[in-house]
Amino acid sequence: MPFVHIELVAGRTVEQKINLVKEVTEAVVKNTDAPSEKVHVILNEMQPENYAVNGELLSQK
Amino acid sequence: MPFVHIELVAGRTVEQKINLVKEVTEAVVKNTDAPSEKVHVILNEMQPENYAVNGELLSQK
Amino acid sequence: MPFVHIELVAGRTVEQKINLVKEVTEAVVKNTDAPSEKVHVILNEMQPENYAVNGELLSQK
Amino acid sequence: MPFVHIELVAGRTVEQKINLVKEVTEAVVKNTDAPSEKVHVILNEMQPENYAVNGELLSQK
Amino acid sequence: MPFVHIELVAGRTVEQKINLVKEVTEAVVKNTDAPSEKVHVILNEMQPENYAVNGELLSQK
Amino acid sequence: MPFVHIELVAGRTVEQKINLVKEVTEAVVKNTDAPSEKVHVILNEMQPENYAVNGELLSQK
Repeated sequence: MPFVHIELVAGRTVEQKINLVKEVTEAVVKNTDAPSEKVHVILNEMQPENYAVNGELLSQK
Repeated sequence: MPFVHIELVAGRTVEQKINLVKEVTEAVVKNTDAPSEKVHVILNEMQPENYAVNGELLSQK
Repeated sequence: MPFVHIELVAGRTVEQKINLVKEVTEAVVKNTDAPSEKVHVILNEMQPENYAVNGELLSQK
Repeated sequence: MPFVHIELVAGRTVEQKINLVKEVTEAVVKNTDAPSEKVHVILNEMQPENYAVNGELLSQK
Repeated sequence: MPFVHIELVAGRTVEQKINLVKEVTEAVVKNTDAPSEKVHVILNEMQPENYAVNGELLSQK
Repeated sequence: MPFVHIELVAGRTVEQKINLVKEVTEAVVKNTDAPSEKVHVILNEMQPENYAVNGELLSQK
């Protein structure tokens, strides 16, 4: 613990994910004093058909 | 914000999803005074093999 | 099931909450064919000190 | 209600899932007095490419 | 990992919680082969005013 | 969107939270190309009595 859940639309490359979890973990460690090996990051990738803002699915836009 | 996460068993049509997010957004706007463009809706579709009630997976029924 | 989680900043009245869960439930029932008694709605109220957008806590604004 | 969400790396067999939800439900019923038919369990299976600990994706290890 | 989130209405005793997390952890370890020290359980206690089923808040009943 | 939920044990100062959300937002913007004003961060503070690892509540330790 801490646990970080990041929801984002599907489509990032593995390389982007590698850098994302690395730098988010660093930010959490630096500002919470939690040891790095206790920081868990979970990426939830959303499909455009399953995410809406302003009443419209991303896939409708 | 507000953020709305809706978990439901997979299988609805895109048209059902379009109407679902539209009407849920309207209900949230009407009752929270949040502007529509700030209401986010995320659909999490569950497989029958990953949802259980009363100790049994849906796929067991 | 379906399960609906709504995250919003704390401060709505009980009456707003009563109407919110009623109308969100109606929208879910109408568009997913789920029976009303199986629709669960959970409100997660966030404190301004625990919600940030654009890198700033709401309590900083 | 209660609702139980279990996040785990993808790869368990259906049989493991059947026993998992059965025994978790039993533990919840026994210790919360909730009736079994009101206990919902949702399994969220994570891909190694979407879960990181200590700043590294599982798929990097 | 695995991570277990349990949402339930507030009001259980500390003793109930102690037994709940112990037995849920045992069920997860037994059925996923995850080591016990890697199983995290988070309890989210809901107020009756923030949980609704069948379109009605628990506090309305 | 993206949405970031960070669960951590209660007790950080407001200043720690200010820096945490700022730096996590920066890491997300840099690695997902999402505009900063679209990145939402939600902090869920857990009480020691509601978080367990290895079958024991933090409050038991």
